[in-house]
Amino acid sequence: MKNNVNRELPDDVMNALDYQPYQTTNIGNPDIQRVAPSVHVQTGDDKLVDSIEDVVKATVKDGMTISFHHHFRNGDFVFNKVMRVIIDAGIKNLTLAPSSLTGVMNDMVIEAIKAGTVANITSSGMRGSLGDFVSHGNLKNPVIFRSHGDRARAIEHGDIKIDVAFLGVPNADKLGNANGMDGKAVFGSLGYALMDAQYANKVVLLTDNLMPYPNTPASIKQTQVDYVVQVDQVGDPDKIGSGATRFTKDPKELKIASTVNDVIVNSPYFKDGFSFQTGSGGAALAVTRYLRQAMIDNKIKASFALGGITKPTTDLLNEGLIDRVMDVQDFDKGAADSMHTNPKQQEIDASWYADPDNKGAMVDQLDVVILSALEIDTKFNVNVMTGSDGVIRGAVGGHQDAATAKLTIISAPLVRGRIATVVPDVTTVVTPGDSIDVLVTEYGIAINPKRKDLQESLGHLAGVPVYTIDELQKMAAAKVGTPKPLEFTDRTVALVEYRDGSVIDAIHEVKD
Amino acid sequence: MKNNVNRELPDDVMNALDYQPYQTTNIGNPDIQRVAPSVHVQTGDDKLVDSIEDVVKATVKDGMTISFHHHFRNGDFVFNKVMRVIIDAGIKNLTLAPSSLTGVMNDMVIEAIKAGTVANITSSGMRGSLGDFVSHGNLKNPVIFRSHGDRARAIEHGDIKIDVAFLGVPNADKLGNANGMDGKAVFGSLGYALMDAQYANKVVLLTDNLMPYPNTPASIKQTQVDYVVQVDQVGDPDKIGSGATRFTKDPKELKIASTVNDVIVNSPYFKDGFSFQTGSGGAALAVTRYLRQAMIDNKIKASFALGGITKPTTDLLNEGLIDRVMDVQDFDKGAADSMHTNPKQQEIDASWYADPDNKGAMVDQLDVVILSALEIDTKFNVNVMTGSDGVIRGAVGGHQDAATAKLTIISAPLVRGRIATVVPDVTTVVTPGDSIDVLVTEYGIAINPKRKDLQESLGHLAGVPVYTIDELQKMAAAKVGTPKPLEFTDRTVALVEYRDGSVIDAIHEVKD
Repeated sequence: MKNNVNRELPDDVMNALDYQPYQTTNIGNPDIQRVAPSVHVQTGDDKLVDSIEDVVKATVKDGMTISFHHHFRNGDFVFNKVMRVIIDAGIKNLTLAPSSLTGVMNDMVIEAIKAGTVANITSSGMRGSLGDFVSHGNLKNPVIFRSHGDRARAIEHGDIKIDVAFLGVPNADKLGNANGMDGKAVFGSLGYALMDAQYANKVVLLTDNLMPYPNTPASIKQTQVDYVVQVDQVGDPDKIGSGATRFTKDPKELKIASTVNDVIVNSPYFKDGFSFQTGSGGAALAVTRYLRQAMIDNKIKASFALGGITKPTTDLLNEGLIDRVMDVQDFDKGAADSMHTNPKQQEIDASWYADPDNKGAMVDQLDVVILSALEIDTKFNVNVMTGSDGVIRGAVGGHQDAATAKLTIISAPLVRGRIATVVPDVTTVVTPGDSIDVLVTEYGIAINPKRKDLQESLGHLAGVPVYTIDELQKMAAAKVGTPKPLEFTDRTVALVEYRDGSVIDAIHEVKD
Repeated sequence: MKNNVNRELPDDVMNALDYQPYQTTNIGNPDIQRVAPSVHVQTGDDKLVDSIEDVVKATVKDGMTISFHHHFRNGDFVFNKVMRVIIDAGIKNLTLAPSSLTGVMNDMVIEAIKAGTVANITSSGMRGSLGDFVSHGNLKNPVIFRSHGDRARAIEHGDIKIDVAFLGVPNADKLGNANGMDGKAVFGSLGYALMDAQYANKVVLLTDNLMPYPNTPASIKQTQVDYVVQVDQVGDPDKIGSGATRFTKDPKELKIASTVNDVIVNSPYFKDGFSFQTGSGGAALAVTRYLRQAMIDNKIKASFALGGITKPTTDLLNEGLIDRVMDVQDFDKGAADSMHTNPKQQEIDASWYADPDNKGAMVDQLDVVILSALEIDTKFNVNVMTGSDGVIRGAVGGHQDAATAKLTIISAPLVRGRIATVVPDVTTVVTPGDSIDVLVTEYGIAINPKRKDLQESLGHLAGVPVYTIDELQKMAAAKVGTPKPLEFTDRTVALVEYRDGSVIDAIHEVKD
């Protein structure tokens, strides 16, 4: 079968997993029966367990679905500690359902797959050796990639039924009250983990910092937690923050950031009370810097900034240029610290952030978002999942979710080295072109033809050449040539869900 | 059938409503499948509705269960506004499931019953004309009285399935982010209402204070709210606080408060890190004052204070004598204001406060609680529901819930006017004697015989005579005589649930 972004989807897999093909970005107004966890009642004075071994023995059985959060990013010690014990216990056929998988987890996941411990994976993404391993067909069942909002949706629908959630926290009391703000390995918002805490049948907290009872503010509450395990260290503080906390000095990135700012400032959305999401990475920080100046110059203040939050964004909050920061994760220590001190920085869970099957998510109210792309094609479809070699090396993240903004900007270089970013057809469609409004490259911009209104406001900016997306694609091809088509086998190694749970693309095993 | 506090329960009603008789205060460790609401998906820019009429038309149908909170207490304008519209719309056979009913709602409830609009009621309590009306058999189906913790349990089990919750708030934005702290009619913690916001299929906010989006801190979140209605005024600020914000000057009350303090201070629980709940009313405030001095004198600090919170308690927090205030409701403006400024005052929902079917509620960790009584009998069973005339004039409140404390003290005068408080058998058992440890009267104390340990620590305090509960009952009878037994008909007008959902007593129609 084909879906509405013209992707051929494997009938056998689609039918076996009872999937619908992607149709539209329009979520509509369905009535959804939410699910709820089973609760084992306890009234004791503590929930402390001596060791990970003990808690694994008490909770994990063959065939279960287990989950983790990725707020520690590459500083995570919890995932490997717990998986080590689970593998050694000889447990088989688990479904691994973390909010995402970071590089530091790769070796352990591969070992768990080889041992038969992990049979299924759903994640926001994967990179490096694990992406390579999966792309070469080494996991029997297809990985299911879901956006952060879609994961929240899937949990709230019961599509993901978490039996046991192992959640690392930088502090907790003996009954499980915990937050992400105090301790050594702090990461700020617990946004993604809050879904697991609310919906998993069993919730295990792991912490290196046992606090007096009752520990508040309690982002995770004792009413949600079954066990608390003390460990030496939950994470490496130095590796939790994203690398990029400084503005880029790359002239190409600065040029793109400056043009992104021009697009925003000249759009109809740049007015008092507007809202935005910029994301992380050096280029995003540069956009925030330009935007700050434009807000000051034009005496414009934002109602809220959303998403993964960085220090330059919380600086705007503290400066009074933004009224609220709605915070599902923090990308650096500065942003995490700010959450502690500024009550206008509100921790939000992944459902509030972006679950499409909701009474209203934050992304629905978003005016402007800047997103990245590995590839974008002439239908404005975006790939943030597979590389130019067809291998999995990315994550859906909040890409599909935030693309619901009124002005969705893709910020990407026309070419990267000898590889075109703007292509006739992306290798993997992650975010449908219908939700993309403007592509900004270092050579100029392309406006989605369906946005005639933007053609008017952005079509004649000084220093911002406007091309059609086909023209940009041809410019890219002229620079780097046309690569040989990628070769894949018939084997499906992953499905990419759209945020509503339909399938927007399938990823096939690479042929070497 | 009879239950374990020797109460005869009406077989027909018990069977028709599929109830079990009360057996034990021990909750055990059952596995509970929680329920979840149905969600109508919306992605629009606001949820504003022009009028209560419009929102009632859109949501309420014959036979539904509707709910309200009682945080505005006698300053509530929301209940009467909404019920007026519902009655006028000719809607019939509703179940009314508020967190409690306050006096200001009485006339409207009676009108709604007479009109056939309300056919069933579950509440924490009722007083005045409504209690009289129900006690005289004017509601066809028995009222179900539930403690605050039991209401949370019932909602989380699906015993109470709320179709539409009408929740008044002193502030909200256009999408439903709201708290109880900002605006004119502020009440602080939204503790009871948080259950309705999380579990009702449809949630309607009513506010007189529409805030810029996004409004934070968001105790109620946009993900939970379907409609927002602007009204002139949600409540009368002057009537929200309880009357008693000053210490009592009544010598009898002061004597009791001083003895309560003696009991606490000489118990094994008065040590660094202890926890307590004192409740509201002039006598409770006096206990807090004595306790403050004892804490200073003995260099003892409390880990937390729990429950309905008053300014004298938040003063202790600000003084550093308490480390945390765990706040399910605030009884006065001082306590509500403190929640705004002191991050150590944590808003908790009714489930966290006291749901017995939980992974751990705050009440499970409580060391000392002081509770009141209309009557207490020689089995230490307590009645806080029916008066000496057998008429309903009280509320379960958190009485059963907090009685789980390690030291549960009933503070009550031996007699009130010509009426004995200590009686051979209470008219209505609300809280089982098994969970009561000490009775404090102005004449002396009685210790529950099962607490031999307390006999040792409290048996020989200077100025605190110790009696058996039978002796105190006889002293009371000697003062006021033995009243003629109350006369009731066979008709059951209410059932009182124990916090686990079993039935602890039935209330019958009074015979005039």
